[in-house]
Amino acid sequence: MKLGQATIKDIAKALNISSSTVSRALKDYPGISKETKEKVKALAKKLNYRPNAVALSLRKSKSSTIGVIIPEVVHFFFSTVISGIEEVAYANGYNVILLQTNENIAREIAAVDTIISNQVDGLLVSFSKETANFDHFKKLMDYHYPIVFFDRIPNLKDTVNVSVDDQTGAYRAVKHLIEQGYTRIVHLAGPENLKISIDRKEGYIKALKEANIPIREEWIIPCPKGTPDESETICKALLSDPSNRPDAVFASNDIAAAGAMQAAKSLGLKLPEDFGAVGFSDWQFSSMIAPPLSSVSQPGFKMGEKAAQLLLEMIDSESEEAFRSRTEMLETGLVIRESSLRKG
Amino acid sequence: MKLGQATIKDIAKALNISSSTVSRALKDYPGISKETKEKVKALAKKLNYRPNAVALSLRKSKSSTIGVIIPEVVHFFFSTVISGIEEVAYANGYNVILLQTNENIAREIAAVDTIISNQVDGLLVSFSKETANFDHFKKLMDYHYPIVFFDRIPNLKDTVNVSVDDQTGAYRAVKHLIEQGYTRIVHLAGPENLKISIDRKEGYIKALKEANIPIREEWIIPCPKGTPDESETICKALLSDPSNRPDAVFASNDIAAAGAMQAAKSLGLKLPEDFGAVGFSDWQFSSMIAPPLSSVSQPGFKMGEKAAQLLLEMIDSESEEAFRSRTEMLETGLVIRESSLRKG
Repeated sequence: MKLGQATIKDIAKALNISSSTVSRALKDYPGISKETKEKVKALAKKLNYRPNAVALSLRKSKSSTIGVIIPEVVHFFFSTVISGIEEVAYANGYNVILLQTNENIAREIAAVDTIISNQVDGLLVSFSKETANFDHFKKLMDYHYPIVFFDRIPNLKDTVNVSVDDQTGAYRAVKHLIEQGYTRIVHLAGPENLKISIDRKEGYIKALKEANIPIREEWIIPCPKGTPDESETICKALLSDPSNRPDAVFASNDIAAAGAMQAAKSLGLKLPEDFGAVGFSDWQFSSMIAPPLSSVSQPGFKMGEKAAQLLLEMIDSESEEAFRSRTEMLETGLVIRESSLRKG
Repeated sequence: MKLGQATIKDIAKALNISSSTVSRALKDYPGISKETKEKVKALAKKLNYRPNAVALSLRKSKSSTIGVIIPEVVHFFFSTVISGIEEVAYANGYNVILLQTNENIAREIAAVDTIISNQVDGLLVSFSKETANFDHFKKLMDYHYPIVFFDRIPNLKDTVNVSVDDQTGAYRAVKHLIEQGYTRIVHLAGPENLKISIDRKEGYIKALKEANIPIREEWIIPCPKGTPDESETICKALLSDPSNRPDAVFASNDIAAAGAMQAAKSLGLKLPEDFGAVGFSDWQFSSMIAPPLSSVSQPGFKMGEKAAQLLLEMIDSESEEAFRSRTEMLETGLVIRESSLRKG
């Protein structure tokens, strides 16, 4: 280790404590023992530690602004989350800036740099479908910078998260299809690197197993783009063989479910008699399509409120407790409409 | 005028030149004559002019970030504009931060303050439905701060704007309804303080006049909220009297058109035979509702690209020409679907 180039990580490693403890010890935060503070400061001095540009920038004066990094603002679910965030933020005198990544890792990294250079007090993050490496967030968290992850939860230690119970939501949706007499149910799955996709798939599998319906791997179909065209093309192929035809779809989002319904209609199938559909997210348009689409509703507004509350606690208190690693889990609902409601 | 409290406006008034000329003269920008610069600087010295906090903040180093103030990010049209903005911004090394006003003037003013304190290089603005006073933007423009207004254009001097030709779009939509044999056409109008609402109403009137159909003031109905419930309630009342029933609607947005269609369906009218509908904006869901909705399409992506290009020119060149007051007008299209297509 060269003198003058020591980082917080080097100090943490040498003393076998976490980076955030080192960071807080250097800043004399409460909740760190006097002994630890002295050890950290002594080593920092010995190693000629200098806070780097990131740390200096993050330590600038309070801007009363929080940043939200989000894949797509047009997504109805995210827009309700944003509304919940703004509600709490404005009530507490904070402004909100939004940074859209378009599911692109390069833009996400650029967004974090924008946050660093713009003196934003804290960050709410739902990362992109492409994000497999979290170093751009870790470099902030190493400096005890307040971050709350929502909806899409990283597989990292020491994060504060707000999520919905996707697995139970998916399980209930598929159970409902089975109760309506559907037995040949396909799952249009989301991007594999997202925990929400895995949870939804597991809920689907759980409901089928419980009803003793065999799981067919070829009927768990990835729709990573989540566009109506993608699922329409996939489902047209799938539904074209009458001898081996699914009778329902559970899709990981409403757009994919709508595409599946278009495919079924174009092949002359009757909805919901011949083919049933349930989506996920309960988009604004879902009640307006023909037939109106059943969907798992997510408490987006509540998620935004909860995430903002946790973030403001981290910003205001700086206490150990506010930064304690945990996941707040919110419940989903099931909105049953005509697309899955057989009358007979 | 007290000494030490003189502003750029005071200097401009005293010399009978514009505030932005004063601002640029003080900053020694090119394009201002030597004589003017000398006069401005002499008067500034005499009046003990000091740049205020806004000016100082705006003059900080370049952040390579542009801000977008927008009423609602979830609005499909605005989301396509954002995509266009981001395309140009990222290609030129700029990041984009979004500030959502929720159609609320207080939040819009707060958003401008966030821009000032966050060293953003320039601003793209579509103002809120509540905005009647533009002082919060003018205080930036007085310091020659780059702003481009898009879609919603203020009634101000010296602004750079990008808009679509709403009047021609509305005219073509109503002309199409008339060609399909509809004669009793209602207009669901947008908020009255927005120029786009006025232009769309004028296009509607123009098409009726051209076809010698009398204008009925009671059939130009404000739907300021633009929610499906609002227009459904209005249209249920309107359609309940068979002796005086409209046979079509031209709505200033697709959500209002969808609400009108729901009302007609709930009263047992056949669409499009008994009742036709055309919306405005061509939202993502419009092709998926029953029957699929005809709509005026706006070049949102193109609008975003154009607005961002103009803004980057203002940021980069600082020349007179880049700041020259003008409105770039983009063309609309008409997407004809089943909701307005009588077969007979």
